[in-house]
Amino acid sequence: MISSARIKFIKSLSQKKFRDSEGLFVVEGEKLVNEALASSFEVESVYRTEEIGEAAMARISSLSSPSPALALVRRPDDLFQDNLPAKGLFLALDGIRDPGNLGTILRIADWFGIDAVYASPDTVDVFNPKVVQASMGAIFRVRFHYTDIPAFCTRVLANSGIVYGTFLDGENLYLKELSTGLEAPSVIVIGNEANGISAATAACVSDRLFIPPYPADDPGSESLNAAVATAITVAEFRRQGSL
Amino acid sequence: MISSARIKFIKSLSQKKFRDSEGLFVVEGEKLVNEALASSFEVESVYRTEEIGEAAMARISSLSSPSPALALVRRPDDLFQDNLPAKGLFLALDGIRDPGNLGTILRIADWFGIDAVYASPDTVDVFNPKVVQASMGAIFRVRFHYTDIPAFCTRVLANSGIVYGTFLDGENLYLKELSTGLEAPSVIVIGNEANGISAATAACVSDRLFIPPYPADDPGSESLNAAVATAITVAEFRRQGSL
Repeated sequence: MISSARIKFIKSLSQKKFRDSEGLFVVEGEKLVNEALASSFEVESVYRTEEIGEAAMARISSLSSPSPALALVRRPDDLFQDNLPAKGLFLALDGIRDPGNLGTILRIADWFGIDAVYASPDTVDVFNPKVVQASMGAIFRVRFHYTDIPAFCTRVLANSGIVYGTFLDGENLYLKELSTGLEAPSVIVIGNEANGISAATAACVSDRLFIPPYPADDPGSESLNAAVATAITVAEFRRQGSL
Repeated sequence: MISSARIKFIKSLSQKKFRDSEGLFVVEGEKLVNEALASSFEVESVYRTEEIGEAAMARISSLSSPSPALALVRRPDDLFQDNLPAKGLFLALDGIRDPGNLGTILRIADWFGIDAVYASPDTVDVFNPKVVQASMGAIFRVRFHYTDIPAFCTRVLANSGIVYGTFLDGENLYLKELSTGLEAPSVIVIGNEANGISAATAACVSDRLFIPPYPADDPGSESLNAAVATAITVAEFRRQGSL
C-alpha cells in the first residue's frame, strides 16, 4: 500500500525544485534500481509493483510503460564540492542542456575512466529522470560536481594543469600530444549544444583541439553532436595514454 | 492562406504510413528548410509563417515551438536501391530504433565522409521528424538505403570486402589495421541499442572489433550508446586512413 500523500510526494520529485529541497531523486527500472542499491548512494525507499500494485506504480512512474521497480535515492553530499585534485583526467561541461546528452556523456565518462565530471550551473540537472535513464547507471559510478567552470579552469592552469577544448580553428586532435593527467590535472571542456564553449570559458582554454573531418577540407555537417565530440576526444586521450 | 484539407494532409505526414504512401516528409526550421532547398532533394512546397499566419503554422508544426518555415520534401527514388559499390566505406545499421540515434549517426556519417549508410528494414524510419531534426541537415547529404543487412554483408564478403562489427570479445580497435575501402567495400555494422548486432548479421561479420575501456579490465558501464560507438569507430578508421 502507498498513501495518496506519498504518491504526491514522489510525483513532485519530477520537478527540480522539489528534488533540490528534498535532496532526493527518482530511479526507475529493475536494473537501475539494483545498480542504485549496489552503489555508494543512499537508497531511501524502493517501491515494487508486486507490493503497491500496478495502478499505484502507474501513478508514481514518469515512464509511459512503468517498470516493476522505482526507488527514491538521496543525492550525494559532494554535489557542489569542487576541490581540485592534484592529477587526473576530468570533463568540464559548459552548459549541456539536453538530458539525453548529459546521460550519454556520463556513460562515456564511466567507460573511459574519467576521474570526475564538473558542470556549469546552467547545465541540465543531473538528477533529471531523463538524465538518470540515459546514463544507464553511470550516474552511480561517475563523480559529478556543479561549479563555476571558468573559475575551475583558471585553478587548473594555476596548478600546472592543461585545459583542452574543441574549436573549429583548433589543432588536429590526432597530431597533438595529449596529457591524461598523470602528473597534473587535465581537463577537457565540452561546449553547449548550440553555442559551443562560452567566451568566459574559452578564455581559460590553454590547448585548442579540432576533430578532423573527412575529407579534411569538407566536413559536410557543420558540427558533431556534443556527446559524440566528447566520445571521440576522450577515446583519443585514452588511446594515446595506452601507447 | 492554407486550406483545412491541406493542414490535415500535412499533419498526416507525421505518420509513417502516410509518408510512405505520399512519398513526402516534413522538414521544419529556417535552416533545415534552406538546406533542403539547396540540396538535390525535390522540395514540393514551403510554408512560411509570414504567408500562412502563426495559427496555421502552429497547426501544421510538430514542434512545441513552431519555427517560421516548414517544407514538404519528396523522398529520394533510391531509398530501396542497394547496389553494392566496388569500393568505399559504408555503415550498415542493424535495427537502430531511436530517432535521435539515427539522426546523430547521419551527422557522424556526414562529418566523416561515409559513402553510404545501409539500414535494416526494422531500423526507425529515416524520414521520422525526430530523425530529420537530429540529423541537422545531414539527411540531405548522406546516401541512405534500406536493405536486408545480412544479405548485403554477404555480398560485400563475396566481393573481397570486409565487414566489421563491434563485440565485447572483439579485437582492440586501435591494434587492428582498418581498411577504409580504397580497393574493395568496407562495411561497419552498428547493432541495435538494446540487443547489439543480430545473430544473422553477426554471422556475416568478418572482423570483430572492440572499443577498449579504461582501465582496460574495468569498463564501468556495460556498453556505450550506439551513436557514440559509431563515432569512436568511424573516427579511428579515418585517423588510420590519414596516417
